[in-house]
Amino acid sequence: MFQTYEATTSPDQGPARLEALRKAYKTQGFDGFLVPRADAYQGEYVADCDARLAWLTGFTGSAGFCAALDDVAGVFVDGRYRVQVKEQVALEHFTPVDWPEVKLADWLKEQLTEGRIAYDPWLYTKGQIEALEKGLKGSAITLHPSPNFVDETWSDRPAAPQGKVEFYPLELSGEKSGAKRARIVEMLQKDKQGAAVLTLPDSLCWLLNIRGTDIPRNPVVHCMGVMHANGKTDLFIDPVKLEGLPPDPDVTTHSFEDFESALSKLEGPVRVDRDSAPLAVSRALTDAGIEIAYAEDPCILPKACKNKTEIEGARAAHLRDAHAMVEFLAWLDAQPVGSLTEIDVAKTLEGFRMGTNALRDISFETISGANANGAIVHYRVTEDTNAPVEEGLLLVDSGGQYVDGTTDITRTIAIGQPTGEQRKCFTLVLQGMIAISRARFPRGLAGRDLDALARAPLWADGMDYDHGTGHGVGAYLSVHEGPQRLSRVSEVKLQPGMILSNEPGYYREGAFGIRIENLIVVQDAPEMGDKRDQLSFETLTYVPIDRRLIVTEMLSPAERSWINDYHAQVAQRLSFEGATADWLKQATAPL
Amino acid sequence: MFQTYEATTSPDQGPARLEALRKAYKTQGFDGFLVPRADAYQGEYVADCDARLAWLTGFTGSAGFCAALDDVAGVFVDGRYRVQVKEQVALEHFTPVDWPEVKLADWLKEQLTEGRIAYDPWLYTKGQIEALEKGLKGSAITLHPSPNFVDETWSDRPAAPQGKVEFYPLELSGEKSGAKRARIVEMLQKDKQGAAVLTLPDSLCWLLNIRGTDIPRNPVVHCMGVMHANGKTDLFIDPVKLEGLPPDPDVTTHSFEDFESALSKLEGPVRVDRDSAPLAVSRALTDAGIEIAYAEDPCILPKACKNKTEIEGARAAHLRDAHAMVEFLAWLDAQPVGSLTEIDVAKTLEGFRMGTNALRDISFETISGANANGAIVHYRVTEDTNAPVEEGLLLVDSGGQYVDGTTDITRTIAIGQPTGEQRKCFTLVLQGMIAISRARFPRGLAGRDLDALARAPLWADGMDYDHGTGHGVGAYLSVHEGPQRLSRVSEVKLQPGMILSNEPGYYREGAFGIRIENLIVVQDAPEMGDKRDQLSFETLTYVPIDRRLIVTEMLSPAERSWINDYHAQVAQRLSFEGATADWLKQATAPL
Repeated sequence: MFQTYEATTSPDQGPARLEALRKAYKTQGFDGFLVPRADAYQGEYVADCDARLAWLTGFTGSAGFCAALDDVAGVFVDGRYRVQVKEQVALEHFTPVDWPEVKLADWLKEQLTEGRIAYDPWLYTKGQIEALEKGLKGSAITLHPSPNFVDETWSDRPAAPQGKVEFYPLELSGEKSGAKRARIVEMLQKDKQGAAVLTLPDSLCWLLNIRGTDIPRNPVVHCMGVMHANGKTDLFIDPVKLEGLPPDPDVTTHSFEDFESALSKLEGPVRVDRDSAPLAVSRALTDAGIEIAYAEDPCILPKACKNKTEIEGARAAHLRDAHAMVEFLAWLDAQPVGSLTEIDVAKTLEGFRMGTNALRDISFETISGANANGAIVHYRVTEDTNAPVEEGLLLVDSGGQYVDGTTDITRTIAIGQPTGEQRKCFTLVLQGMIAISRARFPRGLAGRDLDALARAPLWADGMDYDHGTGHGVGAYLSVHEGPQRLSRVSEVKLQPGMILSNEPGYYREGAFGIRIENLIVVQDAPEMGDKRDQLSFETLTYVPIDRRLIVTEMLSPAERSWINDYHAQVAQRLSFEGATADWLKQATAPL
Repeated sequence: MFQTYEATTSPDQGPARLEALRKAYKTQGFDGFLVPRADAYQGEYVADCDARLAWLTGFTGSAGFCAALDDVAGVFVDGRYRVQVKEQVALEHFTPVDWPEVKLADWLKEQLTEGRIAYDPWLYTKGQIEALEKGLKGSAITLHPSPNFVDETWSDRPAAPQGKVEFYPLELSGEKSGAKRARIVEMLQKDKQGAAVLTLPDSLCWLLNIRGTDIPRNPVVHCMGVMHANGKTDLFIDPVKLEGLPPDPDVTTHSFEDFESALSKLEGPVRVDRDSAPLAVSRALTDAGIEIAYAEDPCILPKACKNKTEIEGARAAHLRDAHAMVEFLAWLDAQPVGSLTEIDVAKTLEGFRMGTNALRDISFETISGANANGAIVHYRVTEDTNAPVEEGLLLVDSGGQYVDGTTDITRTIAIGQPTGEQRKCFTLVLQGMIAISRARFPRGLAGRDLDALARAPLWADGMDYDHGTGHGVGAYLSVHEGPQRLSRVSEVKLQPGMILSNEPGYYREGAFGIRIENLIVVQDAPEMGDKRDQLSFETLTYVPIDRRLIVTEMLSPAERSWINDYHAQVAQRLSFEGATADWLKQATAPL
């Protein structure tokens, strides 16, 4: 099993560690130190050696930071973690702060009239520090890059992961690394840049056609690199990880320790991503007098537009995952109401995915939320919160990492007899989800231009959901991948090959939660009507949507056709025997 | 009758005028002169004295310009006027240019290797000249402000209009001019600006609660002004227009001739709108060493957000207009198929509006387009194009200027037996129009965020329309008013009180055109559901939508309810006797 359900934490160790940290930064003349949850790669998952926030405070959430000052240590967490943080930290030493409602700059100004605050420039991007400096402008509080005082005091800090690197072959990647690098070289030459610094593991994995096992859930390789305009690549990585891989004449590997000094020898202007590269990168370049051209990591957009092979892989991975999901849904329906807990559900689902014999990992911690827990958008079940699955609604959001693709699917399932209100809300969410699924639209639109389609049915009833409609998804990479999104704030133009989630929801606090999620891929729309230049979405996920929760009379003829066609496709694509076949037949019957 | 239907033009005069113009600019050492259709107020309608483009070229369209060079005179017109321009100008002397496909800068660079091109800085904004200069960058073609050489050679140029100015009383404006001016003063003081130059007639009419008759269709007063941060206003206007108006101690009137010299005495920074103020304003300020703060005309946003009295006026005007529209529609249905022409339709409709005894003007030239002519988006019927209204579809887009409000309504009417394809397309357009009408949405969204709702039904069938979904509308002012729009390009946040049109359409070239248009006003949404902070639209227009064109089976239950509720409202709000009452009853019967 990949997922664990303990609410592990050791708040008792925090105070002593905090004292040691204070001593360390004071010795260097500072008045405080910032400890983010992020590592140098700015990813969602960190290796044990990078779990500094958890080590210091006990707080294990996936976002947040600690601002340790002499007299107070604020632990900044968002709405998801307000309860959890209080259980995980020693409250007489650590003070939870409601973030982002309270901004760090404002909080610092409240605590201090003046002071020198230190931070590790490898753990913060230039964009982050600039924003913080802007907030502190006019005060006597100043920010200073420094050594990492947590690392200095963390005596039994684990070693960095040495996960083996695996070559990602052409039959899965669809494009040779050399061809990808040639595309990046073209961008650099066009923009007259001497090199690009690459600090995002998934960018390098895409570029070099490699995958790794350094952290859970994301098959990325912890490494950084430099792509030169002359076509050569320098890769900074623990050489142990590369053992057994064939060498590439255009890729030179170096120890990670040589990265900073290598930066100082680059030919400028050097392309750096202000929003993902550690500030230390910019500092090293500036100190060496090298011109910096701030621009997005050049791999992000080409990586987002999946090629035919990657899309073919995604289809295969989704079909495999759908088999596991249907087995799971059929099993779930056969259990007596109230006989299961949320953890039973998540474990059994993982078991069915394991049963595919192809599961490399789950793509994130399964969200299994019954009734009120389903209304907690980023709920993660632990043994402390584990609720019985009683009559009402069960929300299950999960996914698998397969070698040919990454899946992410949410289904909301009727347990016993759901109420009329629950069915009405489910149908409104479904109408939004169908609107995105059916959408055709002119080339050139961004997620922002389509977001309203998913929300209009809920809006019309005075409802909404407080998360985006969809996020980008990688090709056997991160389940959350930029730059495309279906969101009010996304101005990135949608382009063929971009994989997105389509996941409207509805959450009634303390009562129930609904989300319906398929993955979709942007395509050139099939010719139709006036032959306008349009894009549309191909659906990747084919798993029944709970018919018992649909109020058919609320649907338009076009919506009803969509759901019936969808279920007909599900029935046609999947094949089972026995009870599961019977279950699938009724689950995909026309409305 | 307000509207005329002649295709008046005198191409024969053009060549001699062009020769005189060339002589005039050459004498001053220039190699060309730009003649825009716009006047100094950048409005849609110009006074006879400002119809320079028509005087010079014969072309009477509502947009375009002439670039007169020594050997060629390009007449730049957009897609609407490609045919018309060829009929109106002497083609051996004037060369039609497809604009905006061909940009002026590129055309100039094609015609000339070097040259000094003159323009009247009163007729161009800073934004326009900057864009043009950018396009000419790197070439040896330069732009130069100059006297207006058309005016110099136009011997019998009409005098400027002297339309009487009318006071717009509190019971119609809802806010005293002094209170409006206090709001602008607050903006200026907040932005630390000494004064704002106001060059848009509708801004000044709103600010000073006045209306005029200087130009057709828009009841604005041609004048310019300066609002000082100390609360005083200088108004530059022909004093004849103001006769009989009570003086205001805080408003000093001056002859328009004194405007330029008055600018040179202002206290800076002076607020100037880069996109609407004549470049001459910036030049006068800069020449006097006065600092300019470029920002939007400060009246635009407050004017757009109508107050309760203005909305009440709009409701009354729309109800009055609806009576005329229903009389018109009932009359139309009683005529034998093929017995009318497009001009008959427009004239009769204007007659019914006149019959309200309250019509001040029509709010724009009525579009009356049968079948293929309906597919021409900005069709204006003339005696040359006047087509019989045969079986199929008739598109009528029209509006009235009433003292309490401006209306704008489009209905597409079945003539005889429309085809199944026409009914299907009509229903798709209607579904988009209903989606906007029903929309509730979070406060803070712009037109861009909602535009897709109106198009999604058409998009899904591979169709679309090549115009915005809606434009702002004034309160007994211009029927096209900013800054709000329902459009892919509009980032202006929608705010309560903004009046907009809601007018999706569909146009099949050479066959038929469909548009359905109501006016709507943004309001705080009635409390509902989760009591989220939402806005919605109140519909102002209550006139039957042709039931014969609706394919009921295509509608969702919510859409069908909307149309039935809408028609029930129409029937309840309007009252007739005899045949019109009978017609209205069947026209508003439930689907």
